[in-house]
Amino acid sequence: MARRVAVVAGGHSKFGKRFDATVRELSAEAFKPIVDEGITQDKIDASILSYAASQFSGQGAGSALIADYIGLQNRPHMRVESACTTGTASLRAAWGMVAAGLYDVMLVLGVEQMNRVSSAMATEYMSQAGDMRWEYPFGISFPAFYALMASRYMSEYGMTHDTLAKIAVKSHHYGAQNPKAHLPKEITFEEANNAVAICSPLNLYDCSLITDGAAAVVIASEDRVKEFTDRPMWIKGIGAGASEMMIQDRASLTSIPGAKYAANAAYKMAGVEPKDIKMAQVHDCFTIAELIAYEDLGFAEPGKGPELVENKENYHDGRIPVNCDGGLKSKGHPLGATGVSMTYEVMKQMRGEAENSSRQIDDVDLGLVHNVGQSGQFVNVFIFERGW
Amino acid sequence: MARRVAVVAGGHSKFGKRFDATVRELSAEAFKPIVDEGITQDKIDASILSYAASQFSGQGAGSALIADYIGLQNRPHMRVESACTTGTASLRAAWGMVAAGLYDVMLVLGVEQMNRVSSAMATEYMSQAGDMRWEYPFGISFPAFYALMASRYMSEYGMTHDTLAKIAVKSHHYGAQNPKAHLPKEITFEEANNAVAICSPLNLYDCSLITDGAAAVVIASEDRVKEFTDRPMWIKGIGAGASEMMIQDRASLTSIPGAKYAANAAYKMAGVEPKDIKMAQVHDCFTIAELIAYEDLGFAEPGKGPELVENKENYHDGRIPVNCDGGLKSKGHPLGATGVSMTYEVMKQMRGEAENSSRQIDDVDLGLVHNVGQSGQFVNVFIFERGW
Repeated sequence: MARRVAVVAGGHSKFGKRFDATVRELSAEAFKPIVDEGITQDKIDASILSYAASQFSGQGAGSALIADYIGLQNRPHMRVESACTTGTASLRAAWGMVAAGLYDVMLVLGVEQMNRVSSAMATEYMSQAGDMRWEYPFGISFPAFYALMASRYMSEYGMTHDTLAKIAVKSHHYGAQNPKAHLPKEITFEEANNAVAICSPLNLYDCSLITDGAAAVVIASEDRVKEFTDRPMWIKGIGAGASEMMIQDRASLTSIPGAKYAANAAYKMAGVEPKDIKMAQVHDCFTIAELIAYEDLGFAEPGKGPELVENKENYHDGRIPVNCDGGLKSKGHPLGATGVSMTYEVMKQMRGEAENSSRQIDDVDLGLVHNVGQSGQFVNVFIFERGW
Repeated sequence: MARRVAVVAGGHSKFGKRFDATVRELSAEAFKPIVDEGITQDKIDASILSYAASQFSGQGAGSALIADYIGLQNRPHMRVESACTTGTASLRAAWGMVAAGLYDVMLVLGVEQMNRVSSAMATEYMSQAGDMRWEYPFGISFPAFYALMASRYMSEYGMTHDTLAKIAVKSHHYGAQNPKAHLPKEITFEEANNAVAICSPLNLYDCSLITDGAAAVVIASEDRVKEFTDRPMWIKGIGAGASEMMIQDRASLTSIPGAKYAANAAYKMAGVEPKDIKMAQVHDCFTIAELIAYEDLGFAEPGKGPELVENKENYHDGRIPVNCDGGLKSKGHPLGATGVSMTYEVMKQMRGEAENSSRQIDDVDLGLVHNVGQSGQFVNVFIFERGW
């Protein structure tokens, strides 16, 4: 009924502490490769800006500013915000408008600049995504939410921190091979296991980064795709879910209910199963979040995620390669850019264009993106199919 | 190709200085009439929160909080933000997802609470939607943007402030008959002409209000509409436009280019002309904005808006009734709620349910919503058709 929609191009800024660039310049850096490929401004009907937290820059209503700066000032635009899932929520909204025929070609551009404020202030702003009446005033911030999940997982399934350390080692192994990564360095198992505590049982290397950066993708309707590429990545499945606002209202802390709901919806729409997926970008805001994602997405049975880690099935040459770009942990986590960056990475892997052969995954015909906001209140899962 | 989509229900809080309610309670107040009509939470597939400025409440990522509070915690949600067009941008995004088949039934809920901070602080937050590098630091805020437009209009067309005063008198005349209005009182022409200056030539009664409030609508796909109502209001035309970020980059200040673009797109999609429209809700953030809207929407030729005002063609029994609910001027302007409230008002008028017979417009089969953000950087125009 609706038109099929494909990702036809993408761009990505360097992630890091980008004191050399403002939000508008980061956005332009991600958009430039798209223009360089020939998808010039006149070919784009409308845009969505994925920008999570205006507090960081003080700039309100950012989509007008960014659209103006990159040369789309006379085309419709809007901003979408869904905490850390802002990028994939933007893609979901854009998909709808293209699939339904309102626009043929849309730009989804995600950006965040988080390092112009102190890291304490950045943590403060992120904490404000918790319940400002019943959570924030009692001092809980995001490392604490995920520390509760990690503690509970350890208690229920007997996991030790070794498992989480191994996830961190993998992330940094792949981040070190990604020229766009914020912290492109290998770490040892000992370093990952013995780093300074952030919120027990999570330590420094269990936590993702406070990053500046931008990423962009262009989507097009089926009848326009050929103008832009002979390598379209079709949006085959979309699932979205949500969970209770307050973590204490949840029946379990070893799974995110909205993530299971979103994954099931995406698999159903795509007509595929977890075993068909050749690679996944999952939301590793903390190492425990990546572990739980394996299970919520059906790559491992409940409680069996640690076995997947132990057997290195999550490496680029394993059964289900996960975050072979370094993930939020080593590549970085500029909130609004993250979901778009995940989508970009699936496109690059599908095209065989990962920058380094030792992180390139073989023959990706189906890729999955799993993007989680807050402590699971927002979840988007996308399944992409190679179109050539 | 895409499915037809209709507005099937709505709800509206009292607008005003709502110190008695928080953002979540205002949201529930707008949602309750929908549940009371039998559209319970289990019938809603997903929601969009229209919420413009998280600075006012300090609460980030609000859609999770609101969805949780109103009983939609297990359904997908996201927040859309487009300054003062947030409400209609939300409706545009929701329309896409329903028209394309991702969801059948969606809630679009707009809310803003602006009076918990001082009016100086509220003005400050709104100013941050201007360019934070090239406009804000030089002291320009929204009354000033529109004062420039008013001055230019006066200079080009010889208009006097009398015309603007008459628009204010009309807004308050209808606001006085709307039990949901923030400032439901009649004003005289003399009062409107002689009020204290805010930014010359605009005075107190040329400016819209800093308001707390919420409004909600439910949309459904064509195959589901009958479950909810026998009086569907079809979304027949959608147009969106944008204008240069900085007002000095525009060729003219007596028209908003994005508004003309949006209106033309909406008329084209709906297959109708300006003369077919039976009523319009236009974005009168300032009286001059309403005047310019008459012309951008094709209800008057350029420079001829004042004649329309002079002849009272904009009254409920005139040629093109405009803002017969009081508009942003007297009903109020809670940023995220405004575009949703406009849509709600068209539905009520179409159904013959305006609260007071002396503001009820006869036989509305086609209604228009015109929603502008910032000084025209965002514009959405919707055309709705009576389905019974």
